Amino acid sequence: MSNVKIIIKKDLSNLQGATFITGFRTIGEVGYLATRHLALKRNMERIGYVVTKYYRDVTFLDEYGLATPFDIFYDKEKHLILLLNHILPFQREWNDFANAVIKWVKGVSVNNVLLIGALDKRYKVGNENLKWLKTSKCNMNLDYPQLDKQLLMVGPLALFTLHAEIEDLPALVLLPYADRERTDPVAAATAIEVLNKILNLSVSVNELYEEAKRIEEDLQKQMELLQRELSRGGTDRVYM
Amino acid sequence: MSNVKIIIKKDLSNLQGATFITGFRTIGEVGYLATRHLALKRNMERIGYVVTKYYRDVTFLDEYGLATPFDIFYDKEKHLILLLNHILPFQREWNDFANAVIKWVKGVSVNNVLLIGALDKRYKVGNENLKWLKTSKCNMNLDYPQLDKQLLMVGPLALFTLHAEIEDLPALVLLPYADRERTDPVAAATAIEVLNKILNLSVSVNELYEEAKRIEEDLQKQMELLQRELSRGGTDRVYM
Amino acid sequence: MSNVKIIIKKDLSNLQGATFITGFRTIGEVGYLATRHLALKRNMERIGYVVTKYYRDVTFLDEYGLATPFDIFYDKEKHLILLLNHILPFQREWNDFANAVIKWVKGVSVNNVLLIGALDKRYKVGNENLKWLKTSKCNMNLDYPQLDKQLLMVGPLALFTLHAEIEDLPALVLLPYADRERTDPVAAATAIEVLNKILNLSVSVNELYEEAKRIEEDLQKQMELLQRELSRGGTDRVYM
Amino acid sequence: MSNVKIIIKKDLSNLQGATFITGFRTIGEVGYLATRHLALKRNMERIGYVVTKYYRDVTFLDEYGLATPFDIFYDKEKHLILLLNHILPFQREWNDFANAVIKWVKGVSVNNVLLIGALDKRYKVGNENLKWLKTSKCNMNLDYPQLDKQLLMVGPLALFTLHAEIEDLPALVLLPYADRERTDPVAAATAIEVLNKILNLSVSVNELYEEAKRIEEDLQKQMELLQRELSRGGTDRVYM
Amino acid sequence: MSNVKIIIKKDLSNLQGATFITGFRTIGEVGYLATRHLALKRNMERIGYVVTKYYRDVTFLDEYGLATPFDIFYDKEKHLILLLNHILPFQREWNDFANAVIKWVKGVSVNNVLLIGALDKRYKVGNENLKWLKTSKCNMNLDYPQLDKQLLMVGPLALFTLHAEIEDLPALVLLPYADRERTDPVAAATAIEVLNKILNLSVSVNELYEEAKRIEEDLQKQMELLQRELSRGGTDRVYM
Repeated sequence: MSNVKIIIKKDLSNLQGATFITGFRTIGEVGYLATRHLALKRNMERIGYVVTKYYRDVTFLDEYGLATPFDIFYDKEKHLILLLNHILPFQREWNDFANAVIKWVKGVSVNNVLLIGALDKRYKVGNENLKWLKTSKCNMNLDYPQLDKQLLMVGPLALFTLHAEIEDLPALVLLPYADRERTDPVAAATAIEVLNKILNLSVSVNELYEEAKRIEEDLQKQMELLQRELSRGGTDRVYM
Repeated sequence: MSNVKIIIKKDLSNLQGATFITGFRTIGEVGYLATRHLALKRNMERIGYVVTKYYRDVTFLDEYGLATPFDIFYDKEKHLILLLNHILPFQREWNDFANAVIKWVKGVSVNNVLLIGALDKRYKVGNENLKWLKTSKCNMNLDYPQLDKQLLMVGPLALFTLHAEIEDLPALVLLPYADRERTDPVAAATAIEVLNKILNLSVSVNELYEEAKRIEEDLQKQMELLQRELSRGGTDRVYM
Repeated sequence: MSNVKIIIKKDLSNLQGATFITGFRTIGEVGYLATRHLALKRNMERIGYVVTKYYRDVTFLDEYGLATPFDIFYDKEKHLILLLNHILPFQREWNDFANAVIKWVKGVSVNNVLLIGALDKRYKVGNENLKWLKTSKCNMNLDYPQLDKQLLMVGPLALFTLHAEIEDLPALVLLPYADRERTDPVAAATAIEVLNKILNLSVSVNELYEEAKRIEEDLQKQMELLQRELSRGGTDRVYM
Repeated sequence: MSNVKIIIKKDLSNLQGATFITGFRTIGEVGYLATRHLALKRNMERIGYVVTKYYRDVTFLDEYGLATPFDIFYDKEKHLILLLNHILPFQREWNDFANAVIKWVKGVSVNNVLLIGALDKRYKVGNENLKWLKTSKCNMNLDYPQLDKQLLMVGPLALFTLHAEIEDLPALVLLPYADRERTDPVAAATAIEVLNKILNLSVSVNELYEEAKRIEEDLQKQMELLQRELSRGGTDRVYM
Repeated sequence: MSNVKIIIKKDLSNLQGATFITGFRTIGEVGYLATRHLALKRNMERIGYVVTKYYRDVTFLDEYGLATPFDIFYDKEKHLILLLNHILPFQREWNDFANAVIKWVKGVSVNNVLLIGALDKRYKVGNENLKWLKTSKCNMNLDYPQLDKQLLMVGPLALFTLHAEIEDLPALVLLPYADRERTDPVAAATAIEVLNKILNLSVSVNELYEEAKRIEEDLQKQMELLQRELSRGGTDRVYM
């Protein structure tokens, strides 16, 4: 029915009661930086994939092997499920994507959902580095101010939040202030530090700066280059 | 079958015989201003959601909690169901949206449908502040002139009216004259005053001006800003 | 299956053996003018609606009540079913529309189909005011010349003609010469006069000129105005 | 399932073992000219229609009656089925169209498929007037050179050829050299002469030149005119 | 369900344990050149076709007969299945195409998947002529460096790689460095030489240069010419 499928190479009953974490390459790529760092530092095991109808035609070798656009990891020790989104789904698939993943999360009886996004630094008024938001069923509280009333949150993470609310799932959204124009490791470090506290982890943020730099320099440029080539090829050469 | 789902977290039999109210952010945002004011002032309880295939990726904290694009409220004392549309559905979903909601309204045996829209002030000829319209099954009458013959009503509210007519539901459409270019609280107040009479309420319209002002200033600007950013990001950064 | 539904609020068996009449707002709006005039003058009873997936978001008060885009009328005395199309369906729905209506017409065992269109005056060669066309199963003949061979007929009425031919229904197409650029009541009067003869009616055409004038002046302008406003609003204000 | 339907008003068992012939209005309109000439000269009986989801809204009176976009004829004496395509299907329906027709052709146990297209004269090197092509299951041979290796054949006829190959049907493709820019009766005559030999017919090609001329002059111009009018109307007048 | 069908004219059980090979006309057309050369040199038998919803309307005579866009070959002696993609599927069908073919490959119990693509020469840093990549289940190793970490691979071959990874199929991707702007036979020869080793073949690469040259000169130009004509025709002549 849905155009989004979640494929898991593991007994789903093991996942019951876990915490689900995800984020996207939106403002400052904070959600991506933080979740990728967490997956790598915690040596999480890849246990599955999200596959969509308009699946992105991109792959590469990452530290953990052949990367797919949307890889699902599991951390047995800390009982965490992490969805690492190497690229954004196409916008027309956002709702389907969020809906299907949140329904799956509910289906495996996850205890808690942690969503990592960012706020644009230019709209920062006070001193805090992070604001947050939660769904009606979430009992957690953070030592940071909540997101201001009527301040809009948009993008795929907003859809994850909406579906969590509708499905009566407890979800907490971390929104560090970030630089919109570049990969922002400081904001990702803020998110990691909050996650360390919430999840009782001790993930170092030292290498995050290097990672962000390399992602910014290498991957980003390649993507753009390849993308330009591809799209040029696409229009010039009809029958290739 | 339909791409629009109505999700209710309450026993539907309680809703039987209720009055259903809705409006949209069209001319002067009158329908939105009036329904939001009513929901907040009456401390209505959120009981459900409308979810669509091309669901808007927007959420925010409103006075009553985490807002979804289309929140359904219930007022037990006055037996009112209110659909609060924080944003317009995408136009290609308008008919599906109106059709699904009206069919649901009929299914729960609602007694009466009240639709709040507006007319463009520039076409005003007489002195009246409001005109109205009703479906064949509606027996109510207002102390205002009816909408002139052959004067077209367009937009999502027109579709609600059409489907109410087709489904033999009694529906009354309130159309205060409003300023098209800005959020118009005076027009919303006119609608509220008529609703007060019809529904035997005593909702004050004082704060409506403030609310309209804040909505106009804060929310509106943010929306536009965020929207611009989002769409800029969307075209520049293919692989984010 | 089909995206077009015919909804009838009457026992279908009463309709057996009736004559089905329709027309559209194409050249000179002749098909619309003539069918609306007939429905109003004969005081026909509205008995149903055609509803489509991409239903037009337009309603207004007409002489007979709240108008829907595609209203179905019945004239008991003369045993006529009339489909009054206040606006054109979207072009991508034309075939679905014609196909669904003609299949329904066949299903209720209609005896005869009368389709009212127009020919562009600029292509007129002889003296005649009207040409006509019929499907293979139609035995009627008119005292006017038939449409010239290989002269193309296009638009929604052509699709009604095609499906009538394919479904073995007798259908007669009336094509008075009309002015393409404006609402043409003279052409509509020509059609009404032929209908008067065929159906043994005595519908006066006097008021047709006034009606056409008012439709031309009032409705038309409003439509354009409202449409422009709507589409302007649609592009400027994304989140309304 | 398919968006293309073949409707036949005759017992299909009579068609078993027949030869199926078709062509399209592509290069020089050769396929159309030749098949129409054949249908008219042989006084074939129309026995059915191809109807598609995005059916063309065009009809006209042809020598044999009310023409539909895709008429199917039968020639009892020579046991021929002929599909006369008065207009091209929309490109997005080409594959569906070819697929559905070839599957139907296979289903009625046709013996042989003859496809009439054309080659652009400007690419002619030798003296021959026609080249040809056949599917793997076809045993016929013509006294003309075969199409050069790796010379591409494109368009709806290519899809008929592909599906005939895949369905293991014997199909022969006639490709006379033609003038791309105008209706080319000489090329159509070449095709008819080859068909006369293959099918043991004696269809005269004399009137073909007249027919082509009239088609070129009358029909063509009208089509363009009407099309321009229609599309102008379509953009100017939103609510007609 | 899927819009892509694999049609095989042979007992599928014969294919069990075979090696599956494919490539596309992307960078330097290397994947196409190498797979076509292999199919022709090994005199493989065509055993089937891939057919898609938006099937390309192109056919031509190749050395082995009437070519379809996506021909499937079998080499009994070496137990190889080869998918020869004469043209690229439309981009919106890429994922469906890769998904359907890989699922079919898994279904017939293929032992090994070999994918032939290319890397853009301009990004070459070292001396090697080829880099490679493999899925988690592949045990092979080549005497060439693996693709650098985080270097993106895009296009239809990336989707074949992704689905092979997800379906737990062993797949090896050969990526010789190639000239993006022209048909590059040297890169294709590199791929063939690696295939010779892996599959214990002795396919000569001598004629590859000629083939590439002819493909470059003849086919390519024709394609472009015909394509231009076709698309010009498509816009100018609506009713043909």
